Amino acid sequence: MSNLHKDMVVIDGTCPLLDDFDYISWWIEGGATAAAPTVGGFSGAAATLRHIGEWHHYIATHSELVLVCEAADIVRAKHDGKFGIILHFQGTEPLEDSLDLIDAYKALGIGIVQLAYNVRNRIGDGCEEPSDAGLSRFGRKVIARMNEARVLIDCSHTGYHTTMDAIAASTAPVVFSHANAKAVHANPRNIADDQAKAVAATGGWSVSSGFRRS
Amino acid sequence: MSNLHKDMVVIDGTCPLLDDFDYISWWIEGGATAAAPTVGGFSGAAATLRHIGEWHHYIATHSELVLVCEAADIVRAKHDGKFGIILHFQGTEPLEDSLDLIDAYKALGIGIVQLAYNVRNRIGDGCEEPSDAGLSRFGRKVIARMNEARVLIDCSHTGYHTTMDAIAASTAPVVFSHANAKAVHANPRNIADDQAKAVAATGGWSVSSGFRRS
Repeated sequence: MSNLHKDMVVIDGTCPLLDDFDYISWWIEGGATAAAPTVGGFSGAAATLRHIGEWHHYIATHSELVLVCEAADIVRAKHDGKFGIILHFQGTEPLEDSLDLIDAYKALGIGIVQLAYNVRNRIGDGCEEPSDAGLSRFGRKVIARMNEARVLIDCSHTGYHTTMDAIAASTAPVVFSHANAKAVHANPRNIADDQAKAVAATGGWSVSSGFRRS
Repeated sequence: MSNLHKDMVVIDGTCPLLDDFDYISWWIEGGATAAAPTVGGFSGAAATLRHIGEWHHYIATHSELVLVCEAADIVRAKHDGKFGIILHFQGTEPLEDSLDLIDAYKALGIGIVQLAYNVRNRIGDGCEEPSDAGLSRFGRKVIARMNEARVLIDCSHTGYHTTMDAIAASTAPVVFSHANAKAVHANPRNIADDQAKAVAATGGWSVSSGFRRS
């Protein structure tokens, strides 16, 4: 597996575990080209900014790492034998009530943001809520600003109606960074066939989740 | 004056007024190539990040503007007929007690940070304090991290001993972005000859302040 990975561009799209720096060497040994640690989603702006700063300092002081800000950075990482870090939020708590924070995080390298993590927030509902009211008024503005700022919208862990509203509202491709098929195993965390088809229609994609509950 | 400016690279190094977007057109009409609005210094991380986000969004939606992250951006702005924005902090309150925030702000484009604004803070003393104890322990770590992150240290508005400690501690050039000579007019806000000589010895510079009290 490791040898196969050495020849391929391999991207691990959702890595909560990788937010612990100690595990980075595992991904490199496995031959991954780039991976997306979960660097935020559950806290407000102040705590999130500190943690992003910690990542920037870590990357700056570890020459084997490179921050991925655009697709070409991944190709360059492969060419240079480096490991690309894709900063990913699983949740929108770091946005608080501010659209401008979307632009700030994008400038910091956060190019993919998941709308909710299981539970309700300002933007919409999570997949484990008993009911899902879809995107809020603020949530619709967030989708528009994410489109404008070229931040990829990730609907994993998000409620059905909220995902379908986001997919309808977005003018750019929408993804499920990690989700499995409800048709195979009926679970609130998994997605229905029409959700998978709807993201595909935007030009987006859905990636099956691994064994871990993430 | 405006015609002369059209041929030159003109940088206005300290512009508190320019933090109000309404005034940007004045600088462009005057023929400035780039200028440094004061985008923070007095508030903590949460409020500061929102304001930086506001600037990023404003620059992204105004094609006549460009964010200056390195010297070459100023040359490019001149060549392309655009106006460069240099994000400047007048004070270190946005750092709170976190060195990692220095890296986060640098990634957001804040490449020049003034240590204090007249009064005492975690790092050192301002120029209007009755006494100046020099750089604190945290302040020394801040200087080292600013050097490492390539953030320019600005000693304007900072107390005498704190500036001299910072100049001695820094391994990179230190500047006074806006200060006048105490030898001409004795005022706590102005700098002594040895301060001017000390920054010159680091490879830095001191720029006379304009008519405004800034």
